[in-house]
Amino acid sequence: MESFYVPPHQIKESHLTIRDEEHHHITRVLRMQPGDEVLVVDGKGTAYFCRIASISIRETECVVESMITAYNEPAVRVTLMLPILKNRSRMEWLIEKGTELGVTVFLPIITSRTIPERIRLDRLEKIAAAAMKQCKRSVLPRIQEEKDLEYILRNEINEYDAVYIGDEGRTDIIRLGKENVNLPGKNILLLAGPEGGFTEEETALSIDCGAVPVSLGKRRLRAETAALVMAAYSITD
Amino acid sequence: MESFYVPPHQIKESHLTIRDEEHHHITRVLRMQPGDEVLVVDGKGTAYFCRIASISIRETECVVESMITAYNEPAVRVTLMLPILKNRSRMEWLIEKGTELGVTVFLPIITSRTIPERIRLDRLEKIAAAAMKQCKRSVLPRIQEEKDLEYILRNEINEYDAVYIGDEGRTDIIRLGKENVNLPGKNILLLAGPEGGFTEEETALSIDCGAVPVSLGKRRLRAETAALVMAAYSITD
Repeated sequence: MESFYVPPHQIKESHLTIRDEEHHHITRVLRMQPGDEVLVVDGKGTAYFCRIASISIRETECVVESMITAYNEPAVRVTLMLPILKNRSRMEWLIEKGTELGVTVFLPIITSRTIPERIRLDRLEKIAAAAMKQCKRSVLPRIQEEKDLEYILRNEINEYDAVYIGDEGRTDIIRLGKENVNLPGKNILLLAGPEGGFTEEETALSIDCGAVPVSLGKRRLRAETAALVMAAYSITD
Repeated sequence: MESFYVPPHQIKESHLTIRDEEHHHITRVLRMQPGDEVLVVDGKGTAYFCRIASISIRETECVVESMITAYNEPAVRVTLMLPILKNRSRMEWLIEKGTELGVTVFLPIITSRTIPERIRLDRLEKIAAAAMKQCKRSVLPRIQEEKDLEYILRNEINEYDAVYIGDEGRTDIIRLGKENVNLPGKNILLLAGPEGGFTEEETALSIDCGAVPVSLGKRRLRAETAALVMAAYSITD
């Protein structure tokens, strides 16, 4: 069963209204009828198990039969560094895969080796929404505006319960895994590095500010691979 | 430093010959000169640290100064199921990312829900070779001819020291991680499922034949995501 995304303002306690693309998909593509069951997620963590009450030209009206909060969401809240890449498909791929794995926030981070690129937030958000529905999550990951690494380290690091930084080429340090990321309900930030890696100064500053360096193995991972691997190791529900 | 791929028959003990595309890349793109250092891998697990002795129109001759076996290779030998997908870019993506993570063999597996597609082995091999060089591995992952799941289970499963099967939607079973995949020098087979998942019969037969079911978490992962996650959890050097 596919799920549908309906923003919270279209949802009342006992009924909800599906419009626009989702309405079109229900009526024209899936040719659903009143009485059929649909699963709706609000992108904020709640899933609504509904039955179609009526279908008009512009709207599908549903009755909510039951709801589940934190539906298919991980216990830990992961903010993942989104490396800014010239190759947009690699960024889009990371959004899709990171959403499947359970990332809550994607944070584009500018480092000294980052080559500026315009980020098409609207396109990335669409990819995240499609992946959320496909993988049956109920939270639509948020994609933030880009920020400087140093700004985050100096001003925002205290918002997280733990921060991990991938330290390329080092195997003498811990690897992320469920034995060390075991923080239900906590916020963690994963710094996976830009193309070309963090500079030594950036790694040192991150560690000074409280980030824990973690190994990503012996091989040199592409930026988007490193980020995905850190997310996979951190979300173990 | 980038590495170059030279097949074993072009390598003698103390010197080696770089030809074709790699020669072109060294001379025309990188404009290297006699005396420059190059790192050559043979795709079989050995890395050669060389110095260029001479450059002709068709060949770059190198003197081997030192060599390392199993260079940047994981301790465990992972054979990863390659789901056969209509969307070729998703298969290609899995080859690239699986190579970066350290997969040794990709095995396309036909299941009852697999829709047949012609696999372009030559193209997949090129992607694997590029990823091998990029991530600094010395083994070129082999991409096998496709085989039926049942044939593998009945005839080839004894070639592996351990077999794991991803069991979608189950969270009451173990998750792969370094605490349970700790098999230096051993062969493991990872069955990650086709698009649409294994049938119940396929999962049951796999378990009957000795495969250990493992959780892939609550969310429904795409076939290529599930495969990559299983590889990431299994290779923890």
